[in-house]
Amino acid sequence: MAVVAEAPTVVDLRSDTVTRPTEAMYARMRVAPLGDDGLDADPTARALEETAAAMLGKAAGLFVPSCTMGNLLAILAQVQRSEQVLLETQAHMINTERGAATLTGAFLLGIPGADGAMDLERLGDALRPAASPLRTAMIALETSHNAAGGTVPPLAHMAAVADLARAHGIPVHLDGARLFNAATHLGVEPADLTRHVDTVSLCLSKGLSAPVGAVLAGSGPVIATARRLRKMIGGTQRQVGVVAAAGLEAITTMGARLAEDHDRARQLSDGLNALRPTLSANVPQTNIVQVDLARTRRDSERWVGDLEALGIRTRPLGERRLRLVTHRHITAGDVERTVAAFRTCLIAA
Amino acid sequence: MAVVAEAPTVVDLRSDTVTRPTEAMYARMRVAPLGDDGLDADPTARALEETAAAMLGKAAGLFVPSCTMGNLLAILAQVQRSEQVLLETQAHMINTERGAATLTGAFLLGIPGADGAMDLERLGDALRPAASPLRTAMIALETSHNAAGGTVPPLAHMAAVADLARAHGIPVHLDGARLFNAATHLGVEPADLTRHVDTVSLCLSKGLSAPVGAVLAGSGPVIATARRLRKMIGGTQRQVGVVAAAGLEAITTMGARLAEDHDRARQLSDGLNALRPTLSANVPQTNIVQVDLARTRRDSERWVGDLEALGIRTRPLGERRLRLVTHRHITAGDVERTVAAFRTCLIAA
Amino acid sequence: MAVVAEAPTVVDLRSDTVTRPTEAMYARMRVAPLGDDGLDADPTARALEETAAAMLGKAAGLFVPSCTMGNLLAILAQVQRSEQVLLETQAHMINTERGAATLTGAFLLGIPGADGAMDLERLGDALRPAASPLRTAMIALETSHNAAGGTVPPLAHMAAVADLARAHGIPVHLDGARLFNAATHLGVEPADLTRHVDTVSLCLSKGLSAPVGAVLAGSGPVIATARRLRKMIGGTQRQVGVVAAAGLEAITTMGARLAEDHDRARQLSDGLNALRPTLSANVPQTNIVQVDLARTRRDSERWVGDLEALGIRTRPLGERRLRLVTHRHITAGDVERTVAAFRTCLIAA
Amino acid sequence: MAVVAEAPTVVDLRSDTVTRPTEAMYARMRVAPLGDDGLDADPTARALEETAAAMLGKAAGLFVPSCTMGNLLAILAQVQRSEQVLLETQAHMINTERGAATLTGAFLLGIPGADGAMDLERLGDALRPAASPLRTAMIALETSHNAAGGTVPPLAHMAAVADLARAHGIPVHLDGARLFNAATHLGVEPADLTRHVDTVSLCLSKGLSAPVGAVLAGSGPVIATARRLRKMIGGTQRQVGVVAAAGLEAITTMGARLAEDHDRARQLSDGLNALRPTLSANVPQTNIVQVDLARTRRDSERWVGDLEALGIRTRPLGERRLRLVTHRHITAGDVERTVAAFRTCLIAA
Repeated sequence: MAVVAEAPTVVDLRSDTVTRPTEAMYARMRVAPLGDDGLDADPTARALEETAAAMLGKAAGLFVPSCTMGNLLAILAQVQRSEQVLLETQAHMINTERGAATLTGAFLLGIPGADGAMDLERLGDALRPAASPLRTAMIALETSHNAAGGTVPPLAHMAAVADLARAHGIPVHLDGARLFNAATHLGVEPADLTRHVDTVSLCLSKGLSAPVGAVLAGSGPVIATARRLRKMIGGTQRQVGVVAAAGLEAITTMGARLAEDHDRARQLSDGLNALRPTLSANVPQTNIVQVDLARTRRDSERWVGDLEALGIRTRPLGERRLRLVTHRHITAGDVERTVAAFRTCLIAA
Repeated sequence: MAVVAEAPTVVDLRSDTVTRPTEAMYARMRVAPLGDDGLDADPTARALEETAAAMLGKAAGLFVPSCTMGNLLAILAQVQRSEQVLLETQAHMINTERGAATLTGAFLLGIPGADGAMDLERLGDALRPAASPLRTAMIALETSHNAAGGTVPPLAHMAAVADLARAHGIPVHLDGARLFNAATHLGVEPADLTRHVDTVSLCLSKGLSAPVGAVLAGSGPVIATARRLRKMIGGTQRQVGVVAAAGLEAITTMGARLAEDHDRARQLSDGLNALRPTLSANVPQTNIVQVDLARTRRDSERWVGDLEALGIRTRPLGERRLRLVTHRHITAGDVERTVAAFRTCLIAA
Repeated sequence: MAVVAEAPTVVDLRSDTVTRPTEAMYARMRVAPLGDDGLDADPTARALEETAAAMLGKAAGLFVPSCTMGNLLAILAQVQRSEQVLLETQAHMINTERGAATLTGAFLLGIPGADGAMDLERLGDALRPAASPLRTAMIALETSHNAAGGTVPPLAHMAAVADLARAHGIPVHLDGARLFNAATHLGVEPADLTRHVDTVSLCLSKGLSAPVGAVLAGSGPVIATARRLRKMIGGTQRQVGVVAAAGLEAITTMGARLAEDHDRARQLSDGLNALRPTLSANVPQTNIVQVDLARTRRDSERWVGDLEALGIRTRPLGERRLRLVTHRHITAGDVERTVAAFRTCLIAA
Repeated sequence: MAVVAEAPTVVDLRSDTVTRPTEAMYARMRVAPLGDDGLDADPTARALEETAAAMLGKAAGLFVPSCTMGNLLAILAQVQRSEQVLLETQAHMINTERGAATLTGAFLLGIPGADGAMDLERLGDALRPAASPLRTAMIALETSHNAAGGTVPPLAHMAAVADLARAHGIPVHLDGARLFNAATHLGVEPADLTRHVDTVSLCLSKGLSAPVGAVLAGSGPVIATARRLRKMIGGTQRQVGVVAAAGLEAITTMGARLAEDHDRARQLSDGLNALRPTLSANVPQTNIVQVDLARTRRDSERWVGDLEALGIRTRPLGERRLRLVTHRHITAGDVERTVAAFRTCLIAA
């Protein structure tokens, strides 16, 4: 029933989460030292946690099954019942992961912004004690920002948010599902971004290509609390080094090649924008291309189906847009095929 | 920093969760077909889910990072806020996993029992509508029962609970962390136990020796709901087939050898009971030995330390008992060494 | 320590919640038949519930200590954990009562709108199943709409929302804290508004002048559930007829005079708008006047203090606006004094 | 539909919550100064809060609609999500009010005991950090203890619990629904009991005869937090002085007469024990009589019906016991009638 994703005729642009492990990852998984992470820790998981924490400039790290769980634990560890989290209106944590929040008793308050960055004046207003019946206990950022089309808010924005947060004595969390893409775009190290935040979750299984997992990093006490809470919600696994090994390979070797994905995204955007005005696409900063279908008179579900028939897999973004994500398995030739498929669909209409 | 668990001098009786993957598991992990389980599913995870469901006589299965998460999802999928779950007072779900329950708004009501089996009259009393301010929405069983010393309530008990549940129109969940041990003890198939329940969670990383993971099985609609909720709490992973492959090996090949673990536990219990009356141990039905230290004048923490110094790793069970668990890495010689270590400690006292 | 609110020199425009009981209410409280509402019900509370339900065109009613609790019970009775409620972005239930929601596990999703009415297209978009990770289980309206300045969305808007809700099989709740004001403005009966909703909470202690309490009305089964839940959260009281009697007087006799409050509000708005462009006020539909202070170079806290010194009590609405609410104790002379006080403050600046 | 409770032929022993206001209460309600308790406070509510706090030896008090809400707020204000409360297994807060707890994310852990007093050794065990996956954040006591038959744990027990709590740095809450009954039994002042606890909720509408309400008392900061949370859950009311006035009368004048209720309960128990061995009753310390029906071959529902037919109203306590509560409206003659009715029923059987 499951489609073999690597069939030669399919160009899978649905997400960079479809990336498969590298040979080096498999090799590392085979020989990784193992322990019981539910007892006194798995050595490979510990190595991943320490390596990731060092790269992110934090004191401690925690391996988690997914970035969603990393974000959930950041809330559970730092936000109490009936306290609130401020985050950009379209942030993944509120847009897609809101169900997790409903279990915590935390209130997620969206702050409008542009290009994935909260409006700072509105954020400041929301932080005034009189502005809300609930205490604000966290601000959450996201970079690159998924729903905004993989945009990367400038470092100055992160610094300004950090200043506001510090002035109010509250922590900043970063949903860094695609943190390495953001760092690549800015031409800086990941730690240059994370120095502005207190906790960060980093996904290993998107562009970095590990099969599963994410890391939550932060201060020693917060991560110790998150470790206890991870067990509570069933995220603690036993000989987890078998997959942490792939994560270790991912963070130490796979970041450098993300620039290629960004180049492919730019190539894709350029190709689609040649079809203007019927179609148009954002000018991507990272690896996400959003295609505006409003003038094509077909909705996004129809487009997904038509492109699928031509071997191009995409995802709808609401009713009038598509989302295309480049990654390690997308070649320049795949991009050409994709643009051609769009053209074919337009002609067929 | 992490101790290499397989060092020859250490006999690790802390838990059967310390078991390491087999060569066959590694081989299978290397070649497993992979997909994105967050999109249209990973084929190996799907194969594991279908195989496990078939073995457990259920329509559908769901791979989860841990049995704790399987139990949590069983509640989230079937018990609403301010409804209650009835389960034996010392059940793992209330004793150890109670934190998960606090996120659900479900109330866990312990029913006293013996040998891990709820007293049926008390259970019946608790089910009377007038008996509680909250609606009961689930009964949960556990077999083998961890805190009761790996005991296996008789099939007739499970049938009686199922009858009560059906009479009240509520589902029965089985925490089957060590379900294959229970089946082995009774000399029946796992499905002979699970036919009395609606959902069951089965741990793959205890005696079955997979590195990580568990399966939740049940009806199609309940598992579909649990699948959606798994994503919500961050338990959905991408190319999860890399570890599901080991789980598939575990459930299809590793159940048969659990009888050896039970033999080792019996050998261990016999050895320790030879030290009566100072020490005594339960007569184990499966692979868990509880040692009563009350007459030794040393508390359990002290015993753990003394045994550790002799290369025997154990865990305290309250202040006056130890818990020892046999598994694939425990040989007859290890058991002899363990009994000798206890004797040494007693003499040294 | 407590200020005597009825001192002749004070014009209290902070809220219509400051209204005191009438002589008729006191008389009725003295003679009301009483029972134990926690057992087989208080007869006066029951009379109030039945009378209110009939006026609102619903099968059943429930006396509650406050409208906030009525809204909370509407959610608890109809929305499960991890389901969502759609409501206008500035609705009182999300703006001010959001803490209550954090206890329920429900997610409140704000829908932008104008004059207190959600944008219907956005509401429709939000109801599409693919639009959200959570099931929508309720739409909530508010009329008159507090934060929008006491505006009353047209009946056609309520009907359109009801149509959308019915098409998706979900209930509509109405936060009718000032429902009688809305009906007065439209020149219709309260039941003409509530026919478009499934449940409604009605405050007795605002313009209607009862000392305490509110009523939640709806179908028999929903109210029966809410009654059970009211006890759960501590909202069930014993000989509550002593205050329900005042509520009965309030709903049967006090609605007719609300037009006076609206006249006073219009008089107040007109007076303040004579001070344009430095000050400006909305043209009130009901009894709430919002004063824009942006051009006065003083923030709202400062204005509140300056007016208080002149015997006029008001409340800040953010940093640049004031809120003034007319009610039974505000006379035409009080309005003149208020306008004069604003003028004095402007001159003094 | 509602039965007039004061009909001469009915002896209502269902609960002391059926007590009606006194003439003095009505008089005080008529003249009480009022304010808006949702804004700057109602002066009569404030007077009640201050008077109650002083009587209970606490810095501050908070009027609440019910003792259930007082207990809920004590948890909300002091226990975070996924923390636990230790309390006697049959305490009202777990037995009857458990639904409230499900909204808080707190876990209620029952500690077995005798006569309403937790076993101190078990309590100490439960407080050991290793004993639980969750941090314990509160111990809750109850006196007199409803389910244990109105028993009053000795002051030394309360002191011992307080010592344990202090040693672990956690607060003690007292569910003092019938605190004045407990003080009466011990012949001490209420403050002699409450000095052993940090917060206490006191019901005004049981034996003290106020129509509605309760008071939560404790330290200034905890009560300030509870005041904010009271508004959050809808427990804040406006001109609440109309009923707080009755509460003020209740706590200052009605405690002295509770000894009569205890005498009546003793008279009732003596009368019923004359019917031994078929029937038997506890020897009451306060105003609650539990009748053991096990040898009568009729269940409690049947008994309730049979007694009701003779004008005696009682409540079942499980299937084999009845609960009878004496109060201000129960005379010595009513007790005689009640005993006679039991005798009649026994003969008729």
